[in-house]
Amino acid sequence: MKNCIVAQSGGPTSVINSSVIGIFKENLKQKYFDNVYCGLHGIEGILNNYIINLTEIGYENIKHFKYTPSSGLGSCRYKLEEFNNCNEDYLKLFQIFNELNIEAFFYIGGNDSMDTVDKLSSYAKEINSHIKFIGIPKTIDNDLYATDHTPGFGSAAKLIATTVLETYLDSSVYLNNGIFILETMGRNTGWLGASAALAQLDGQPVADFIYLPEQVFNMDKFLEDVRRKYEEQNKVYIVVSEGIKNEKGEFIVESEAMPHDEFGHKQLGGIGDLLKEVIINSGITSRVKALELGVMQRCAMHCASLTDIEEAFNAGAHALELFNKGYTGVMVAFKRISNNPYKCIMEDVDVKLVANEIKYFPKEWINEAGNHVDLRALDYLRPLIEGSPQLEYENGLPVYKKLI
Amino acid sequence: MKNCIVAQSGGPTSVINSSVIGIFKENLKQKYFDNVYCGLHGIEGILNNYIINLTEIGYENIKHFKYTPSSGLGSCRYKLEEFNNCNEDYLKLFQIFNELNIEAFFYIGGNDSMDTVDKLSSYAKEINSHIKFIGIPKTIDNDLYATDHTPGFGSAAKLIATTVLETYLDSSVYLNNGIFILETMGRNTGWLGASAALAQLDGQPVADFIYLPEQVFNMDKFLEDVRRKYEEQNKVYIVVSEGIKNEKGEFIVESEAMPHDEFGHKQLGGIGDLLKEVIINSGITSRVKALELGVMQRCAMHCASLTDIEEAFNAGAHALELFNKGYTGVMVAFKRISNNPYKCIMEDVDVKLVANEIKYFPKEWINEAGNHVDLRALDYLRPLIEGSPQLEYENGLPVYKKLI
Repeated sequence: MKNCIVAQSGGPTSVINSSVIGIFKENLKQKYFDNVYCGLHGIEGILNNYIINLTEIGYENIKHFKYTPSSGLGSCRYKLEEFNNCNEDYLKLFQIFNELNIEAFFYIGGNDSMDTVDKLSSYAKEINSHIKFIGIPKTIDNDLYATDHTPGFGSAAKLIATTVLETYLDSSVYLNNGIFILETMGRNTGWLGASAALAQLDGQPVADFIYLPEQVFNMDKFLEDVRRKYEEQNKVYIVVSEGIKNEKGEFIVESEAMPHDEFGHKQLGGIGDLLKEVIINSGITSRVKALELGVMQRCAMHCASLTDIEEAFNAGAHALELFNKGYTGVMVAFKRISNNPYKCIMEDVDVKLVANEIKYFPKEWINEAGNHVDLRALDYLRPLIEGSPQLEYENGLPVYKKLI
Repeated sequence: MKNCIVAQSGGPTSVINSSVIGIFKENLKQKYFDNVYCGLHGIEGILNNYIINLTEIGYENIKHFKYTPSSGLGSCRYKLEEFNNCNEDYLKLFQIFNELNIEAFFYIGGNDSMDTVDKLSSYAKEINSHIKFIGIPKTIDNDLYATDHTPGFGSAAKLIATTVLETYLDSSVYLNNGIFILETMGRNTGWLGASAALAQLDGQPVADFIYLPEQVFNMDKFLEDVRRKYEEQNKVYIVVSEGIKNEKGEFIVESEAMPHDEFGHKQLGGIGDLLKEVIINSGITSRVKALELGVMQRCAMHCASLTDIEEAFNAGAHALELFNKGYTGVMVAFKRISNNPYKCIMEDVDVKLVANEIKYFPKEWINEAGNHVDLRALDYLRPLIEGSPQLEYENGLPVYKKLI
C-alpha cells in the first residue's frame, strides 16, 4: 500500500484546487499511489488528524473541485519550528504519515509553505525517512523566487484588468467626472498592480497612473501627477498597490495614516481610501472614488484565466513526476520559453531557493516618471490571463464543490 | 426625413447599452426612422448639441456596444425645471429636435429620467408638437414603480450572488475564521442586498444574515445575531444594504457615524466599515473583513445576466413599437406571467406612475427575525440572473466599444 497526501497553506487563490485535481487525475493515469489523502487546513490540520481520502470519495464527486475557488482543503498559517528546537510536531507528523503509508507529501503554497517543505524534507533525510516532500507554487502575489510566475496570479491579474476596464467605463460617463482609485493587493510587490496596465481601449492603457511598491512613492509628486492629469482631461484613473512605500521604506498607509480620533478609533481603509482623502484635502476635486478589490482577487473563479487553471493543474501533475524521479525538497517551477506564442515548461527548483524569499517586480519595467509600466511588463503579463473556463452553471451561478 | 434620438441618464448599469442596440436593430428591421441619433450625456449634452448619428457610424462599428457596460452614450443628472417656470431648456431642446427632424425621443433611465420624459411629453402636448417621448427603464436598484423589475438589476444581482458565493469560500478556509461583511448598493431599497440569498451551497444560502433598508435596523439585535452565530459556527457571513435605517428612519451610516477626529477628517467608509468597527469594539472578534462592491455592481459585464442583457435589448425594441402605436409619455414595463418557466411580457405604463416614485422590497418577504429573506424572494430573483453572455475576448479581456 503506497499513499500520498496533499495539503494547502497560506492565502487562497482562484485556482489552488486545480493543482489538487492535477495530482488526483495524474495518479489515476500513473497509479503511483493507492490512495490520495488530503490534509485539511494544512499541516495544522494534519497534526489534528483532519484527513480525508479523495480516492474513496471518487472523481465523480469532486469533478467540480477543479473549478472551485479558494483553498478547498482549508488552509493554515502555521510555522514549523526548526527541527532541532522542537521535535514534537515533526514526530507527530511522521507518525501520522507512517500510519497512512504516505510516500509523498505535496504542499501547495507560497514562500512560507516552501519553508515547511524545506524543513520536512531535511528532517526526513536526517531520520532516513523515504517520504518525499514536494512543493507546488501558489500565490496571487506572484512573488515566488525561481519560477517565471505562480499559479493563482494570472486569474487575479485577469480580475484586476477586467475590473479596471469596466470601472474605467463607469467612471467616465459624465461631462464632469472625478478621480477613480483602484487599490490592489500584492503586499511588497507590484505584480498585481502592474497587471492593471493590461486594461486597454484603442491600444492605450485606461489607467493614467500605476504606483507600485518597487518605486519610492512621493506624495507631492503624486499630487502633481493627479492635478496635471485632472486639468488635462477632467478625469483620472489611478491604480495603487497596497504596499507602496516612502523613501525610508515605510508603508505609506502607515507613515501617512491619519491620526486616531479622540475615542481611539483607528481610521479605516487602506491606501486607496488614504489617497482619496489626500486628494480631497488638496483641493483638486472632491469627486473621488476609491475601490478596494480585496479578497475578490483571490477567489473570483468566474473571471479566472484558463491558462492559469491549466497551469495549476499541470503543476500538480508534474509534482507526481518529480516524486517518480525520486526528488524531494523541490518545488515545481515554470520556465518561460517564449511569449509569442506563449510557451512555458515545468522544471524543479530547490525549495531553499524559494523559502522565505521575495521576487520583486523588475524596476526597469517601471517608466521613468515612476507612475506606470512599460511594454516589457505587458509582454510578460498578457499570456497569463488568456482564456476563460467553461464553468458549469446552475440557477445562474457557477457550480462549486465544498470539501470542508 | 424621419429621425429619432436616444439618450441615457442617471447611474450606469451593465446592460444599458443593450437597449440602445435594441432600438437600433429593431429600426433596421422596421425602418421607422432614417437616422438613429444619440444624445451624449443625456439632455444636458443634447442642450449642448453633443449628438452623434448611429446610422452613419453603422452597425459593424458598434456591434460590441450591446455588450459594453456603463452608460456608453454618457450620462447626466440634470433635472428639468417645470416648463411654466423656465422655458429656455424646453425651447432649445425642441429647436434641436426640429432641426434634426426628430419624431421620437427615447430616454433610458430611472425614476428621475422618467420625470424628464413626463415633462417633455406634457410640454409637447402643450405646444402641439408631434414628437413622442418614451422611457426605457434602467437601474441596478430595481426600485422603479409599475414594472416587475428593471434592466440592469439582474446583472448587478448576479455579480452580488457570485461574489457572495466566492468570498464565502474565501472566508471559511481557516480553523479559526472571522466575520465577513459584504456591503451592497440599493439606496433606500433592499433588492440588491436580497439578491445575496441566491448564493447557495448544498441548497442553503451561504449568507448567515441579510439586512435590508425595509426592516428597521437595531444595533443591539445585530450584535446579538452576530455573537450567537459566531459562537455557533466560528464564522459569520453578513450582507448589508448601504441604506439600512434605524427606527427613526435615519440612515445607520449617518446616525451611528464615528465622530470626526481632531483634524476634522471625516471617517471613511460606508456601512460595511462601520459595522466592522462596531463588531470589533463589541469584543466578539477582531477578525472582521468588510468588502464594498461599489460601482462594480453597475458595470461588471463580464459577470452579467444574459436574461438581463436580452431584456434590455427587447425593451429598446419594444419602445419602437410604442412609438409606432402613437404612444407618448409612457415607459416600457415588464409584467411577469410566470416564474417557472420564467415568462415576462412587455407593456407600457404612464411615466407619471414611475416618475419620482420608489418601489420597495416587499416587507413580507423578509423573515420574522428581520435578518434574511424567504423563498418568495428567491423565486422572484432567480430567473433574473439566468444565462451568461458569450463575450468576445481579445488578449484575455472582453472587447468593449467606446462611443464617447
